[in-house]
Amino acid sequence: MKRNGIQRIPGGVIAAKGFRCAGVRCGIKTRAGAPDLGLILSERPAVAAAVFTTNRVQAAPVLFDREILKHGPVRGVVVNAGNANACTGLKGLRDARRMSQLAAECAGAAPGRFLVASTGIIGVPLPLARVESGIRDAATRLGRTPAHADAIARAIMTTDLVPKAAAVAVRVGGKAVRIGGIAKGSGMLAPNMATMLCFITTDCAIRATLLRRALRETVGQTFNRITVDGDCSTNDTVAVLASAAAGNPPVERTGPGFRAFRDGLLAVAEELSQALVRDGEGASRFVEISVTGARSESEAARVARSVATSPLVKCAINGGDPNWGRIICAAGYSGAAVEPERMRLWINGQMLFRNGMPAAVPREKLVACMKPKEIRVRLDLGRGRRRARVWTCDLSKEYVSINADYHT
Amino acid sequence: MKRNGIQRIPGGVIAAKGFRCAGVRCGIKTRAGAPDLGLILSERPAVAAAVFTTNRVQAAPVLFDREILKHGPVRGVVVNAGNANACTGLKGLRDARRMSQLAAECAGAAPGRFLVASTGIIGVPLPLARVESGIRDAATRLGRTPAHADAIARAIMTTDLVPKAAAVAVRVGGKAVRIGGIAKGSGMLAPNMATMLCFITTDCAIRATLLRRALRETVGQTFNRITVDGDCSTNDTVAVLASAAAGNPPVERTGPGFRAFRDGLLAVAEELSQALVRDGEGASRFVEISVTGARSESEAARVARSVATSPLVKCAINGGDPNWGRIICAAGYSGAAVEPERMRLWINGQMLFRNGMPAAVPREKLVACMKPKEIRVRLDLGRGRRRARVWTCDLSKEYVSINADYHT
Repeated sequence: MKRNGIQRIPGGVIAAKGFRCAGVRCGIKTRAGAPDLGLILSERPAVAAAVFTTNRVQAAPVLFDREILKHGPVRGVVVNAGNANACTGLKGLRDARRMSQLAAECAGAAPGRFLVASTGIIGVPLPLARVESGIRDAATRLGRTPAHADAIARAIMTTDLVPKAAAVAVRVGGKAVRIGGIAKGSGMLAPNMATMLCFITTDCAIRATLLRRALRETVGQTFNRITVDGDCSTNDTVAVLASAAAGNPPVERTGPGFRAFRDGLLAVAEELSQALVRDGEGASRFVEISVTGARSESEAARVARSVATSPLVKCAINGGDPNWGRIICAAGYSGAAVEPERMRLWINGQMLFRNGMPAAVPREKLVACMKPKEIRVRLDLGRGRRRARVWTCDLSKEYVSINADYHT
Repeated sequence: MKRNGIQRIPGGVIAAKGFRCAGVRCGIKTRAGAPDLGLILSERPAVAAAVFTTNRVQAAPVLFDREILKHGPVRGVVVNAGNANACTGLKGLRDARRMSQLAAECAGAAPGRFLVASTGIIGVPLPLARVESGIRDAATRLGRTPAHADAIARAIMTTDLVPKAAAVAVRVGGKAVRIGGIAKGSGMLAPNMATMLCFITTDCAIRATLLRRALRETVGQTFNRITVDGDCSTNDTVAVLASAAAGNPPVERTGPGFRAFRDGLLAVAEELSQALVRDGEGASRFVEISVTGARSESEAARVARSVATSPLVKCAINGGDPNWGRIICAAGYSGAAVEPERMRLWINGQMLFRNGMPAAVPREKLVACMKPKEIRVRLDLGRGRRRARVWTCDLSKEYVSINADYHT
């Protein structure tokens, strides 16, 4: 599949040249046999950029990585699932540093050049001995086969049901450049990419400032526009590593090369972020909330998020219940200065509300528009020309089951 | 039971002298036999005050009542359940006016002196013929017996499982004064008293400006501090009518008489608001989130609301899961400038987190503190001396069932 010069390719986080990876089990997750530790190694120092959670409570790996990124290129990422190493005080910071150092040592890299990420339960100290043995094991198993790509995509999962990977090739300066990544969800995906880890690699040669810019623009349009339950975690991380192995003339300014790279990054992030929502905890339906006719993009996004996080809206979608008044209601309490008389609402193309009143819709059409597994809500505010989309899922009994008993 | 001179008494919304009420069935609710229309009549013109939803989308009765209240005393309230008369355009406004006029006519009152309230589904026109016959029927059945008080408390219910009423007697200027009310929930109770109707009557003689002030102070401490699912409805109304039938010297300034009245009002509102949370949709546990050590009361309330609306926290409480990290996490994304190192957390008196680290708590104590049906969370921010409490309930599979299939 090729669109705007963007070609989907296999390989996930090792689709790009110059990277190897491994996913192993070291015994953090309670489920027998589940892999829970991953390594990504760049053969050469890689330019890196990352975006982290906006939560005031930040897990130790997030605090650690912020420091690492101040000091130039990195050699890889070490990640564990099953324990978030959050709310763990000074021991947590020591543990994160130890993970980074051991990964660098085992991979033959300079100390302090490995990013660290953790996901799982909060407030429980990391079982460091297991993590250490996992890192040693993973370092001996690094490779570039599809099995390697699959193993690390699985190693970062928590309540995710399926591994999530995506990759594309784009042309930059006449050369093929690859961008690929893996991600895990699957509760707490909002308002800003919560309980979410995503690692992207590329073989594009690109200056660090431009890599950061491309990532920031991409995250704003993708991972920051998804929500499962409105919760925002302590550990969210989206990191991108660029190996420069593609041999393209380095991207050093905004222009066609930069845009081609950024559009490829956006395609990978969009695919991964939608996959996160489709695999949201207990999700049975994929929902797109598209708000148009807003004064500003931020106004549109605010209204879209308010609708996308309303438990009443999400329950109605779960039940296929055409109770669209809840959408208008959630727009009303979004904090945006919406006016009901100007709003127009469609679900899957069926107009339901305009001029402050219900549209005349036969009962069977009303029911029919809520039947599909993909629900596309469009709400026009009638206030301007700006728009934003947010992706979410329904709220199901399974969500409650999963989260009522995560710890015990 | 008597506390600070406040005595609990029976009678609900007709505990105060000078009021009669009725609750009848007119056929708006689909469930056979369920009453769905109520009338409250004040024998004489009553001083009135009300607080309404902050949603930008306001139901027709809310818009109508705001006008009524600009023009002096009222004679009563007409209320229906099963249909919210919201998002219904000009027809909705005409229907609300018609309800008010007919209620006044049937009760022998001056036109335009009846408040109107509606609750139920949004975006469906009111079945006006049924409502009219219900008003005529109710007007012939007005009375002051316990059966009357119970009938109207039931007539305003939607997904509520139990009727909610409370009343107290206090002494004002040497005279006994009564304050009583009814309320209905039970989803959408936040951030500001959503999908919530409450009608309070009193026989206190009090100036209108002071009645408004007492109500505003009361609502800020009670109905604005409860949440079931974070949604905020189009129809919320808390109205209070004062008949002056108690014969007390009129309350005309702040002072002991005003404070006695306000404390009585607060007691009624606190009992009703907690009853709303206990009967929240699908609720199996009552939860108090108490935030202390904040810089300001609004900071404390902001953190408390963030914890109280987190689906992950609420699911954990549902499952009796001691996953307290989610509470710290929800405080972190509240928007308040909290610092994990300064926070301390207790659940039902058990300290769980301090100095940025988990407290050393044996497993059995951890599990035990989540067992009770009432969960009291205390989070000290270590930033100042202000505090706030928010009451909520857990998030259960039953909540999803109720809301996945409300309409169809």
